[in-house]
Amino acid sequence: TVNGDRLWQSLKDLAEVGAYEDERTGLRGVNRLALTDADAAGRRLVISWMEQAGLSVRIDRMGNIYGRREGTDPAARPVLTGSHIDSVATAGAFDGCLGVLGGIEVVRTLNERGITTRRPLEVAVFTEEEGVRFGTDMLGSAVAARRLSAAYAHALTDRDGATLGDELARTGFAGPVDERLDAPHAYVECHIEQGPVLARAGVEVGVVTGVQGISWQEITFHGRAAHAGTTPTELRADAGLAAAQLIVRLRAMVDSGSYGELRATVGHLIVHPDLTNIVPARAELTVDLRNPDDAAMARAEEDLAAFLRTLETGQPGLSIATRRMARTAPVPFDEGVQKVIARAADDHGLAHLSLLSGAGHDAQEIAALCPTAMIFVRGEYDGISHNPREYSTPETCAHGVDVLATALLRLADE
Amino acid sequence: TVNGDRLWQSLKDLAEVGAYEDERTGLRGVNRLALTDADAAGRRLVISWMEQAGLSVRIDRMGNIYGRREGTDPAARPVLTGSHIDSVATAGAFDGCLGVLGGIEVVRTLNERGITTRRPLEVAVFTEEEGVRFGTDMLGSAVAARRLSAAYAHALTDRDGATLGDELARTGFAGPVDERLDAPHAYVECHIEQGPVLARAGVEVGVVTGVQGISWQEITFHGRAAHAGTTPTELRADAGLAAAQLIVRLRAMVDSGSYGELRATVGHLIVHPDLTNIVPARAELTVDLRNPDDAAMARAEEDLAAFLRTLETGQPGLSIATRRMARTAPVPFDEGVQKVIARAADDHGLAHLSLLSGAGHDAQEIAALCPTAMIFVRGEYDGISHNPREYSTPETCAHGVDVLATALLRLADE
Ligand SMILES: NC(=O)NCCC(=O)O
Ligand SMILES: NC(=O)NCCC(=O)O
Repeated sequence: TVNGDRLWQSLKDLAEVGAYEDERTGLRGVNRLALTDADAAGRRLVISWMEQAGLSVRIDRMGNIYGRREGTDPAARPVLTGSHIDSVATAGAFDGCLGVLGGIEVVRTLNERGITTRRPLEVAVFTEEEGVRFGTDMLGSAVAARRLSAAYAHALTDRDGATLGDELARTGFAGPVDERLDAPHAYVECHIEQGPVLARAGVEVGVVTGVQGISWQEITFHGRAAHAGTTPTELRADAGLAAAQLIVRLRAMVDSGSYGELRATVGHLIVHPDLTNIVPARAELTVDLRNPDDAAMARAEEDLAAFLRTLETGQPGLSIATRRMARTAPVPFDEGVQKVIARAADDHGLAHLSLLSGAGHDAQEIAALCPTAMIFVRGEYDGISHNPREYSTPETCAHGVDVLATALLRLADE
Repeated sequence: TVNGDRLWQSLKDLAEVGAYEDERTGLRGVNRLALTDADAAGRRLVISWMEQAGLSVRIDRMGNIYGRREGTDPAARPVLTGSHIDSVATAGAFDGCLGVLGGIEVVRTLNERGITTRRPLEVAVFTEEEGVRFGTDMLGSAVAARRLSAAYAHALTDRDGATLGDELARTGFAGPVDERLDAPHAYVECHIEQGPVLARAGVEVGVVTGVQGISWQEITFHGRAAHAGTTPTELRADAGLAAAQLIVRLRAMVDSGSYGELRATVGHLIVHPDLTNIVPARAELTVDLRNPDDAAMARAEEDLAAFLRTLETGQPGLSIATRRMARTAPVPFDEGVQKVIARAADDHGLAHLSLLSGAGHDAQEIAALCPTAMIFVRGEYDGISHNPREYSTPETCAHGVDVLATALLRLADE
């Protein structure tokens, strides 16, 4: 078993980097968007911990960080673990960080016990997993796994027009190493569940069977600025109204039950010129769809597009543009690695259950390179996440990393 | 008749102050929000023109500017004209400016012709007529007319937290004169219609019978930030969805016909944290309602409040706060002044029609102090306004100011 206190202290220390206090609730949260100064400070802290744990650190051209512990067989492909430390703007301390700091804690424990492995062990920190700064999630791992190109990623811009390439250079994380990762032997990622399944079942550990599909689009409505007091309703091309109609429609699609277990979220929404007495000339929003069933997802995307066309024809002067931000199919995880994880949990006497991930994870990208699966730990408060209230107890975190350690050891001696 | 070329040149010169180019349409617009640097520059230009026209200028504690031309009877109460030069962020060159520059053009013409009047003539520039920076429209004139207090106005804040009082001081427009205006003899304001009535009737000049009621509220929805991928729909408190439901509901209320000639606009809308994969924790929007019938307006406000309560009870975890920003009842204009305007149009051989104003105007505040009415000039393109496309021809503007000159002369000799 790992040192749960040390793990917890690391989680707390990293959560200080980019910490903020929520005015309304008084809760302390984390705001560490990818490649901001806060993220860079977090990366430096993690690298210092890697180096203290004797890992040799390399950084690739996507800013992905790998810390390596050699094995006894220098020719053997490494076993990889890790996750990300970038966060959304209203995050807790666990999302991503538990996987990275858990990996480092496993190495610290092995060092203390003098345990060597046949295969090398590597701990990865992937860039822009959240996707909320540059618009595509699991970006660093998707490039490492060759699903997306570094050129595509480097050209992505944030809302202020800064490119990811520039921000890598500015923060000093444009590394020299080729971003295409050589296939590891296996990949295991430990992560907070971020959902209610384990909490409701009263179980601490989950074996993740895969990740559902994700569809992200940005939709821009172009209408016509007009005076709120004088413009007859029938002469309006109200971009904000059209945006609202789409949001209401998406919920109706979810509630209809016709698209399987569809989830739909409009998290980003702005109008322009954004003033009380002006009919919005423009509205921009993002649509985040999730579905475990890819055919149902495709139908939802088609029906959404058809609805946008009816909005366009229904309001003269309104035009709608759609931009694809990210799209992944459901990814099933490797059954062998799932079994290794389940067995590790059994070894620690921990009850576990198998579940699908509602969130996207770096593991779903690395799964294209090697056998992959994930360990979930239970979150409190119905597993709320992307919220400062996100929480898992010290004991649960330690139990999840115990399972990670045992699974990694087993895979590293295969 | 006034010098239409000179008037047009003044409109063009003032439109350069705060000018911007719209990226998408290539149109040149005006962005001169109240008490910004651009507004201050515009004020200085207008004051220089007032002084060149021999007006003596005074500034009150609300930043309202008055330029005075003495009459032959020093004891007679003045005839007041004017409007505002602050603009929305996507404005044209006419809204407000035509009334101020028209007033100055009348003075220039009287000076050239050596015409004296019994009563003094005053040209006013009122502060924050648009209400889009500090949240309450017709603010300067409402304080001059004692409907609102200077203390209330000075404490209003913009989105960055700057108070109107601070911005008056910063721009040098916190004048020494008492903001409570002594009752003038009469007030006449010339303004672009900003709506389609005159354009569709093919008539250049309108005699304004009054202004419809205006209701502005800010509504804040507090929900709960949550992960877009993992959070089951039934566990969400989605502030953005609730905002969208309100927007769609408002349009349904308008379309129902149950609230007379209600117009409803949501011009301002933001969500927080405003990121793709986070259910919005908070949404904030403004509701702008207009109605010529005050009873129908009150019903719309009540039904809106009731709808907000059903939204609140329908989504556990959602709470809604409402803040009143501005509220005016319909204001009828003085019939005597309307007749003076109609006669002046007849004198110039200009067809005219009577109409109610869809927009709010400083005249509706000054109407509490003295007999008041307005002259509208036709806008092109269905009268579109609060849009860079806002336009009236040089001839139409000159005709409107011809009518203004004749009406002011008549009132000033009463
Ligand atoms: N785990 C996590 O929050 N990933 C971000 C990508 C997503 O939105 O699912
Ligand atoms: N004339 C004008 O645009 N006034 C601004 C106040 C309103 O929104 O009606």
